Amino acid sequence: MSADLVAAILAGTPGWGAASGGFDEADVRQVLDEAGRLADEVLAPLAAVADREGCRLVDGRVRLPEGSGDAWRALAEGGWIAPDLPEELGGIGLPLPLTVAAGLLLEGAAMPFLMGVGATRAAAHMLAAEAPDLAADWAPALAAGERAATICISEPDAGSDVGRIRTRAVSEGNGWRVTGTKCWISFGDHDLTPVIGHMMLARTGPAEAGTRGLSLFLVPSAVDGAPNGVTVERIEEKMGLHGSPTCVLRFEGAAATLIGEEGRGLPALFTMIELMRLQTGTQGAGVALRAAALARRYAAERRQGGRPDAAPPPITEHPDVARQCAEIGVRAVLATALTLEAAATLAAARAGDAAAQAEASVLLPLAKTFGGELASEAASGAVQVLGGAGYTREWPAERWLRDVRILTIYEGTTGMQAQDLLLRRLVREEGRGIASLLGRLRAEAAGWGSGSPLLDRLDALSDDLRARPPAALAAVADGYLRAFWAALSDHLAARLAATCPPAAAAGRWWRATSAARFDLALAEIARGVG
Amino acid sequence: MSADLVAAILAGTPGWGAASGGFDEADVRQVLDEAGRLADEVLAPLAAVADREGCRLVDGRVRLPEGSGDAWRALAEGGWIAPDLPEELGGIGLPLPLTVAAGLLLEGAAMPFLMGVGATRAAAHMLAAEAPDLAADWAPALAAGERAATICISEPDAGSDVGRIRTRAVSEGNGWRVTGTKCWISFGDHDLTPVIGHMMLARTGPAEAGTRGLSLFLVPSAVDGAPNGVTVERIEEKMGLHGSPTCVLRFEGAAATLIGEEGRGLPALFTMIELMRLQTGTQGAGVALRAAALARRYAAERRQGGRPDAAPPPITEHPDVARQCAEIGVRAVLATALTLEAAATLAAARAGDAAAQAEASVLLPLAKTFGGELASEAASGAVQVLGGAGYTREWPAERWLRDVRILTIYEGTTGMQAQDLLLRRLVREEGRGIASLLGRLRAEAAGWGSGSPLLDRLDALSDDLRARPPAALAAVADGYLRAFWAALSDHLAARLAATCPPAAAAGRWWRATSAARFDLALAEIARGVG
Repeated sequence: MSADLVAAILAGTPGWGAASGGFDEADVRQVLDEAGRLADEVLAPLAAVADREGCRLVDGRVRLPEGSGDAWRALAEGGWIAPDLPEELGGIGLPLPLTVAAGLLLEGAAMPFLMGVGATRAAAHMLAAEAPDLAADWAPALAAGERAATICISEPDAGSDVGRIRTRAVSEGNGWRVTGTKCWISFGDHDLTPVIGHMMLARTGPAEAGTRGLSLFLVPSAVDGAPNGVTVERIEEKMGLHGSPTCVLRFEGAAATLIGEEGRGLPALFTMIELMRLQTGTQGAGVALRAAALARRYAAERRQGGRPDAAPPPITEHPDVARQCAEIGVRAVLATALTLEAAATLAAARAGDAAAQAEASVLLPLAKTFGGELASEAASGAVQVLGGAGYTREWPAERWLRDVRILTIYEGTTGMQAQDLLLRRLVREEGRGIASLLGRLRAEAAGWGSGSPLLDRLDALSDDLRARPPAALAAVADGYLRAFWAALSDHLAARLAATCPPAAAAGRWWRATSAARFDLALAEIARGVG
Repeated sequence: MSADLVAAILAGTPGWGAASGGFDEADVRQVLDEAGRLADEVLAPLAAVADREGCRLVDGRVRLPEGSGDAWRALAEGGWIAPDLPEELGGIGLPLPLTVAAGLLLEGAAMPFLMGVGATRAAAHMLAAEAPDLAADWAPALAAGERAATICISEPDAGSDVGRIRTRAVSEGNGWRVTGTKCWISFGDHDLTPVIGHMMLARTGPAEAGTRGLSLFLVPSAVDGAPNGVTVERIEEKMGLHGSPTCVLRFEGAAATLIGEEGRGLPALFTMIELMRLQTGTQGAGVALRAAALARRYAAERRQGGRPDAAPPPITEHPDVARQCAEIGVRAVLATALTLEAAATLAAARAGDAAAQAEASVLLPLAKTFGGELASEAASGAVQVLGGAGYTREWPAERWLRDVRILTIYEGTTGMQAQDLLLRRLVREEGRGIASLLGRLRAEAAGWGSGSPLLDRLDALSDDLRARPPAALAAVADGYLRAFWAALSDHLAARLAATCPPAAAAGRWWRATSAARFDLALAEIARGVG
């Protein structure tokens, strides 16, 4: 079911044609069916077990939940770890939007486990972009699941605040040695592969240099079979995401290889961060799709109410339950449409379209944030439709709700995404990406013969905010992010209504409240910080 | 801190004066300080342990988490189990609004454990109202914590749908015997007291009679020290609320005493259901207060960001973090104001004011629903302010978020509350309670010299909906509930702004978006079910 819906939404995503690389409708169906099968047969059962079992630290090494190794091998054998890498780097050259479409099904089934896959794939792409020589060795091993990767940014006293990173890298011979502590490292250790490559930001310049003193390194967990000075200090006990070990790692003089230029660590991580934010949106949309399917199925089967002298009707016949299912369903299709729009735009950017790159930088904070929020709302909605049962561990809805709560926190909190959109994309870049995106969406709406009143209002709001003193903007960034989403989601809903029969009713449903949602965001902006 | 805030909000609640029974400001402070001390010293530590340990079924009996027995004794010794019972029934005659005010502090500290206290207190009040002879024996024992009580309504095939209850009661000698299975019974078994009194709905009439065939019974877990045919079939594994055992109970010919008249079971439960819905709102408000305090404290202490060459500032100096804390704080004070408003209105009703009873029936679905929703938003907001730390079990925010997810489900789902408000209070009762409440609130606003535009719009909306065919209403009940809350919360926020200095800024903050929130609810109503 979800595979049909995803295929239909992908087909209606305007950028898909140019990015499809010759994959036709039948190819898409084959890819999605295969992903769906793997999701249902291997990943979903693992996710249920992993949530209960969790990860443990045994003799200094992380032990993953039972079944993790089998799932990793199944993903590797199916080519699912980095399918969008070119063939010469071990991928199968799957177009990015189709990779993401398949990812929706995989992530929805076992989002915590896919954390390890996502970092591994993103690292392979980053190396391909920043360090071709390293990529020649590492990317095929990563794609084949023979090695894995992490992203190591945060430190105990430098969370979102990378300018304060203190882990030091010292040049030694023809290499480097890194020493420091990194925290919140997903899949920082595990037994899936003999070697884990840590893509790490460390300081080579003075502390006063802030982010300009940071360089990017590849730090393998082992070199020639011998440990490389990396120890696991702790794994976090979390609300959810139990299938993903979140580690505190200590690096003690670990051998490291510089990636790109010294002092250019943050820009070099760009490709990886971009893909991981897109993954976050994909995780949210994937879980939302599954939550919507569960709520719909449960409501169609569960019977309750009605006249006491007749058999009870399925609860989906109760208007308020039907309304709840519609609210969940529209969140799933909007999150999907948003994720695929971002993926198609990023694909165009990779093909060399500079305007698309600017647009992708605008879409990513939205996909990241609202992928997470829509997933929380959908999972919470599914709990509500299932009632008391939904609150128990007999059904996966409560697990999804626990898992997705991390989405608006990791890979840059909502606060940071809002600042990125308003202060960087709108103010610093003078709204170029925003103007390009709005122009393209307006032309699309004109093609349906409809106006774009909310896009026009968003345009006016953007002009208004750009004219204000910058110091006043941080307080209204969240409101701007929400106004942007009200307008963009209205457009995506209009697209679904116009081009995607299985989601057309959901699109119309959402649009009935779009203007009110935009007005609410405007009222938040008008209030400022009170 | 929270005790100060609660005292200030109580003092500004108009109905408090008439309901205060001579308790003055110093008395209130003493009661709240004592409750706050118990909350912080006994209950909060228990809640952290209980969440980890959970309840277990050992040899057919429920074993509560370590420390539960001590907490129960501390509550009993302090008179906290049913302080608002009259002295002759074992209470201390505390006014209901003050009981609820203290309850905010207790519930916020250990909401799962307080489930057992709430049912025990509600049962004592119900017996006092419906069966004075039983109350003479039971109420003092309940208030002293020598016995406990439950409410037993749901069955595997009859959740919200009480008309389908199948548990049968058969008259035998001068008593009754009940046989059937009840589920979702909070504190259905435990080792706090030797006897648990189950307040149970069972069928004495034919199945076709629906709710009119139901009678209310008191079924003790043991009679004269011997078991009474009650067995625990299972305890549920839940998302949260681990300190509260949620049981499936099997009754096999258990001796039972009829409460009130045969066939009048549902009306006889009224007092108990009313108190438990008010408790649900109290739970939400209590947790929201604690979440707000945690977010504020953490943001004032946690340092991050700023220029790399200077010490990092507390994150509360970042405008978006300040905004987040304000969003959480206003939810805490609004939930508190709403709960105390409902409590004061219910107190007036108990004193014989028929209009107040009608108003209380309007306020309870709102207090129950929005207590739950505001608590979820506040707990989720606290997780967000704490960031990655908030997602770990080292801080209580994620636990609160798991615990409060039940609030919009049990004691009548949000869907049922919305139907109650629209179909019963507005349509069937011809809006009498609503008109009375709006009239009173308008007069209050006139006293501040301000108009009540949203109350006026709610009035017009109510008239509009009453004129529609009833069959069209179920689909818009949720929208009506939300419109009602938008208008009522605007009024409560205005009251805080006018009368409650520590919450005045929060009140103004909320009001800046009240109209937009009302418009959004109207758009939902206009859409219908799509």
